Amino acid sequence: MRQATDLSSFQEHIRNLQAEINEGLRTLSLADRPDYLYTPVKYVLKGTGKRLRPILVHLVGETFSADPEDLLHAGLAVELLHNFTLVHDDIMDADSTRHGQPTVHEKWDESTAILAGDGIYALGQLLISRVKINTLQAIQAFNIATLMVCEGQAYDKEFEHDHNISLDQYFTMIEKKTGWLIGLCAEIGGILGDQNEEVRSHLRSYGLNLGKVFQIQDDILEVYGNEKSMGKSLGSDLVAGKQTVLTVLARELFPAEWAGYWQKIQQLEIDKALSELRGYLEEKKILQRAKELVDTYNERAREDLKSALGERRHILMEFTDMVVNRKK
Amino acid sequence: MRQATDLSSFQEHIRNLQAEINEGLRTLSLADRPDYLYTPVKYVLKGTGKRLRPILVHLVGETFSADPEDLLHAGLAVELLHNFTLVHDDIMDADSTRHGQPTVHEKWDESTAILAGDGIYALGQLLISRVKINTLQAIQAFNIATLMVCEGQAYDKEFEHDHNISLDQYFTMIEKKTGWLIGLCAEIGGILGDQNEEVRSHLRSYGLNLGKVFQIQDDILEVYGNEKSMGKSLGSDLVAGKQTVLTVLARELFPAEWAGYWQKIQQLEIDKALSELRGYLEEKKILQRAKELVDTYNERAREDLKSALGERRHILMEFTDMVVNRKK
Repeated sequence: MRQATDLSSFQEHIRNLQAEINEGLRTLSLADRPDYLYTPVKYVLKGTGKRLRPILVHLVGETFSADPEDLLHAGLAVELLHNFTLVHDDIMDADSTRHGQPTVHEKWDESTAILAGDGIYALGQLLISRVKINTLQAIQAFNIATLMVCEGQAYDKEFEHDHNISLDQYFTMIEKKTGWLIGLCAEIGGILGDQNEEVRSHLRSYGLNLGKVFQIQDDILEVYGNEKSMGKSLGSDLVAGKQTVLTVLARELFPAEWAGYWQKIQQLEIDKALSELRGYLEEKKILQRAKELVDTYNERAREDLKSALGERRHILMEFTDMVVNRKK
Repeated sequence: MRQATDLSSFQEHIRNLQAEINEGLRTLSLADRPDYLYTPVKYVLKGTGKRLRPILVHLVGETFSADPEDLLHAGLAVELLHNFTLVHDDIMDADSTRHGQPTVHEKWDESTAILAGDGIYALGQLLISRVKINTLQAIQAFNIATLMVCEGQAYDKEFEHDHNISLDQYFTMIEKKTGWLIGLCAEIGGILGDQNEEVRSHLRSYGLNLGKVFQIQDDILEVYGNEKSMGKSLGSDLVAGKQTVLTVLARELFPAEWAGYWQKIQQLEIDKALSELRGYLEEKKILQRAKELVDTYNERAREDLKSALGERRHILMEFTDMVVNRKK
């Protein structure tokens, strides 16, 4: 009984935070003109993201009784940073849909999307500079993380269509591309909660590990997810020659047969290829191995929470569960 | 005699600053990998720009005895901000050459250029956050200016091929696109020199006016410049349907005949069109009117210097002369 109540109050808290963040994004003080810049910026900010990153900022910050206004500003700033990278990544990866909506470069054009991304990032910078506690440390963490995310996206592009990428290289890429931004969210919660470097470092490490969980799951959902709830077509990363945990594992575990098999199923129409691939990955226990990696990093993330928060880690454990159990 | 000595010592100071800034750009602490990100970033930073913007930061800051290391960091930060906008603008405007070198998207591809621009901006953010005096004010000025530059580029794109843009709209565009970044440079010199808001505001206004001078001259050089020393083909903005002071003035001054004339010369091969256009703009005194606008804003910039710096404005007056008399 107690657990059920806790869980429902946790879920209610998450919903309240989502509403607050969406309201914050909607009421950001933006100029009306020029349309060329602000119409696509507003389009992006009206999107229906899960807002996991700003929620994480809030949950960590609340644990340390950080100032609510600081958490709102920092949460919006990381959400803008996240959206800036999505808008630009979607151009680079030629993705036409995001959360079931046309991407900016698809709805308008590439120039519009480049500039919208730049503007969103500048707005994020202005927001992060408005926090009142440890302002400069928050700003520096924000920008170091941005550079790391750029490095991660660069590895992602560099590794495209490369059939020699190892699991280690895959982890280097996802730690930067996905992990650092989530690490930043946890760390900023600690910065705004005026915690020392040791705590911050555990928080950052938590985010890096949770980011790995998140990305491995993303790769699994790309093959096993529900197209409708994902809001994008399955298999698009595979078609684009992206490195995913499943293909990298398949190559490492079955070097002799994988290349030929992969060649073969790429000839098939996408739905057929996916269904064929699902069977193969299960039969060869590659899916199982990927899920074990989720467990490993989930475990490490929980250890980090223990080191960072001790007895106060309860709500972040629930957040971690929510991320680990997500279906989209 | 005295003036000649002053001038040569001014020129030597400028050369020293350029060398210091180029050295700073060359020795920026950058990772080696991923190549996909850092090879193009290094390529951009090795470019041969005039470094006018960081020089302005130094000259203003030196007037107020600002800390030299702060000036170096802020100067590099504004140069990176400038280069980030150039790399992205070159994609949006499909420009293939800059300072006689292939642009990033031309040498590599658009994805590489988008990401290189993002990385350069993030590096600029990290640099500006390293200044020690009035750090937060410097950061906020930096990001407000970035947003204004994005707005200016948006107007530039919005106004492309629009035959109804007025001189007022043209000035709105160039004030944001070109003026704000130069205004930022002057203002940051004042921020790092710990000046009050009144002085800063005069400095910003100086930069906005100097930026207008700079852009009007750019538009004139686009038609009357020396192709070799410009490092780009003349007339490219005209071909791209950009608003320039000359075409906007021609339309405002000769509404009845301009549209037909412009249609006609656009049929010609570019060299012939330019030579025809030069004759027309001179004969109709449109060139003269544009030069009068340079004089007007040059005068306003000098008034701003007087208000901001009083008797200490000498070196900035020389800098203003240098910009006003530039041939490339």
